Amino acid sequence: MCFKITVAILASEIKKKVNCLSERKNVVFIVVDGLADRPITSIGGLTPLEVASKPGMDKLAEIGICGILDIISPGVPPGSDVAHLSLFGYDPYAVYRGRGGLEALGAGINISSDDVAFRANFATVGEDMKVLDRRAGRSLPEGDVLAKSLNGYRSKLFPDVEVTVKHTTEHRCVVVLRGLGLSHMVSDTDPHKEGSVMQAIPLDSTPEAKKTASVVNEFTMYSYESLRRHPLNFEREKKGLRPANILLLRGAGRLPNMASLRELYGLRAACIVANALVRGVCKAAGMDVIEVKGVTGSFDTDINAMGHAALKLLDEYDLVFLHIKGTDSASHDGDLEKKIFMIEKADKLVSLLLDSVELDRTYLVLTADHTTPVLVKDHTGEPVPVAIAGPGIRSDDVKRFSERDCAKGGLGRIQARFLMPILIDYLGLSKKYGA
Amino acid sequence: MCFKITVAILASEIKKKVNCLSERKNVVFIVVDGLADRPITSIGGLTPLEVASKPGMDKLAEIGICGILDIISPGVPPGSDVAHLSLFGYDPYAVYRGRGGLEALGAGINISSDDVAFRANFATVGEDMKVLDRRAGRSLPEGDVLAKSLNGYRSKLFPDVEVTVKHTTEHRCVVVLRGLGLSHMVSDTDPHKEGSVMQAIPLDSTPEAKKTASVVNEFTMYSYESLRRHPLNFEREKKGLRPANILLLRGAGRLPNMASLRELYGLRAACIVANALVRGVCKAAGMDVIEVKGVTGSFDTDINAMGHAALKLLDEYDLVFLHIKGTDSASHDGDLEKKIFMIEKADKLVSLLLDSVELDRTYLVLTADHTTPVLVKDHTGEPVPVAIAGPGIRSDDVKRFSERDCAKGGLGRIQARFLMPILIDYLGLSKKYGA
Repeated sequence: MCFKITVAILASEIKKKVNCLSERKNVVFIVVDGLADRPITSIGGLTPLEVASKPGMDKLAEIGICGILDIISPGVPPGSDVAHLSLFGYDPYAVYRGRGGLEALGAGINISSDDVAFRANFATVGEDMKVLDRRAGRSLPEGDVLAKSLNGYRSKLFPDVEVTVKHTTEHRCVVVLRGLGLSHMVSDTDPHKEGSVMQAIPLDSTPEAKKTASVVNEFTMYSYESLRRHPLNFEREKKGLRPANILLLRGAGRLPNMASLRELYGLRAACIVANALVRGVCKAAGMDVIEVKGVTGSFDTDINAMGHAALKLLDEYDLVFLHIKGTDSASHDGDLEKKIFMIEKADKLVSLLLDSVELDRTYLVLTADHTTPVLVKDHTGEPVPVAIAGPGIRSDDVKRFSERDCAKGGLGRIQARFLMPILIDYLGLSKKYGA
Repeated sequence: MCFKITVAILASEIKKKVNCLSERKNVVFIVVDGLADRPITSIGGLTPLEVASKPGMDKLAEIGICGILDIISPGVPPGSDVAHLSLFGYDPYAVYRGRGGLEALGAGINISSDDVAFRANFATVGEDMKVLDRRAGRSLPEGDVLAKSLNGYRSKLFPDVEVTVKHTTEHRCVVVLRGLGLSHMVSDTDPHKEGSVMQAIPLDSTPEAKKTASVVNEFTMYSYESLRRHPLNFEREKKGLRPANILLLRGAGRLPNMASLRELYGLRAACIVANALVRGVCKAAGMDVIEVKGVTGSFDTDINAMGHAALKLLDEYDLVFLHIKGTDSASHDGDLEKKIFMIEKADKLVSLLLDSVELDRTYLVLTADHTTPVLVKDHTGEPVPVAIAGPGIRSDDVKRFSERDCAKGGLGRIQARFLMPILIDYLGLSKKYGA
């Protein structure tokens, strides 16, 4: 019996190897952030997707199967972090523990499950703690040096807690509290609009939340006392620039409580993502983050560089995840023209991939992480369109990729967290439930 | 720091106020009770909705987004109470604790979460406790006086329990047991068909259920001993009318375990509803109940009065809920002609609203609480059609409001409890989940 089992194991190993070298299937999974929208009267009651010229996306819809995804559930606007957890197959209500842990991962900080992390802004405040600019002018070449000047701070009230500060881009930072007995159930010091610096307060009655809030308030005051006296800030003021004289913290969070896609399905996944928060979700899901020159989270991102890098990655990975951010930024700015421009730019990525991949072994997946209507300038809860092309797909009658066309597609209306199991099944990596 | 927090709260209040006075969006939410049906051979295999003349509803479907709603889940016929809980966004399996509590709210009785309430009928029984008429002839002008004669009864077995009896319409009453250690897990004394008065029995093994069943049986016998000797009943017998000589209890229930729509979403909601049970659900959801002269739960209800009252309420409320009952009554009677008549009457309400509201700021929502096929004369488990018109809606290709047309709509098939979050999101009152 032992012998037979060995033979069987060997056979499956050989099959795997053959699968790997020749006809192994793979997926390119593209998310265009905030792509979905609402009909807009000024453009004939159409959505930006409906008026944009996007032959690649339309072709993908035509040869593929389409549908609409509820990212969380109908009517619930998702944040980008929670949205990507869903798109990667996780139930956010079960795994999500705030934004901070994902921001830290995205910024390349290795944090443990005990640590509590925050997204932070360098900001400008007056002596009365009134916030004069939540972004200290946004452009901040001094960010790295200023962050390092605060890094390693040890709490006076709780000397077991050490603070890590890492600058990311422009005015953006990640702050990590490292120590025992901390909690992510604390409120922000960032007022989120012009106003005064807020006191962090515990959001539950645990001693952990109380301790964390105390450290946050202590560190916030320390950041002000230290930064206001920093020579680089005196230089900024001499140049007529706003001093980056405080750190405003928000989005307390810990690492999400989840297994990687490799652990769950044996999936080897890579991603090309500039946005730190989404990159954090990718890392939490166990994706390898690939740096590609020219790929930014902005309108100037190099679509060609992204596309060609993705094609190369298909040799090594089962799934390559690509993220385009500009569409969402345009929506938040209420800039319809820029949104259409970014849709047409994203379309070139889809066209490039359609022209280059072998559709008898590669699945192309296109969707959005949420609806961000240009007229609302924020996320809303409508479902998003999705299209999947590739071998063995039950293609439908949908010929255009849009919110309304995809609603008539063969996938119907499903929850976003079922998309990943569908892809896993196409890849032949799913496990039968039952006999 | 306290001061600063106060400032932030005030700022948001001011924003709300500005929002309120200018371009605030709102919703008129119409439920036509038991509207949905099955195809009927005698009318060419069409449903009553498909044969009725209903230009308003069809127009709403044409300009709106359509779909079908599973009120509970496929194949489960909902009661009107549970159906409206779903339509208002609640999960009935989580919040529902029987009909009685909602009946009491609907009848204007303030009950606490400890009380157990019942729907009750004045009925006619013989000396052998055999039910001769479950409705004591239905017409009962003496109802108020008879109810008051029983009101305030105190249990002999459990003197801490006091009984409130309130007459509502015709033969209908609400009975509330007030005291400690009561349970809604008791069976009905109403046999629901001709037969004998039933003994209430505990439906679980708790002492609370046992105690409540004892009080119910004691009170039922008391109602018989007291009512059979009531002078008004002697007078009824002299007139050849059936005496209302007992109260039959059913639908033991407590208040549902739920937060109001205002608490959940900050929604200010009002309703115009004649039916006591649905009114109870509205109250439990925190809606203000508005009395409108001429609006009844019957075929004669004044649609114009309802429509014009609704339009006025839009100045003060985010959501106005309107309920039309006659369609369901016609279905229960198996009266196809009356059902079509009531659909066409309800259509006039839709037309009036379509002609009067500003569709760039008001959402019109039309649906049913369940399917009540004329040929079945009772609720069944099929989904119901829904249409939503208003600003930014992703309108679809559906041009007629019917069970089958709406199934092809852009909303797809969703659970009824997601309808309210969708409306909340359109109103801009939803909260983002995640960052």
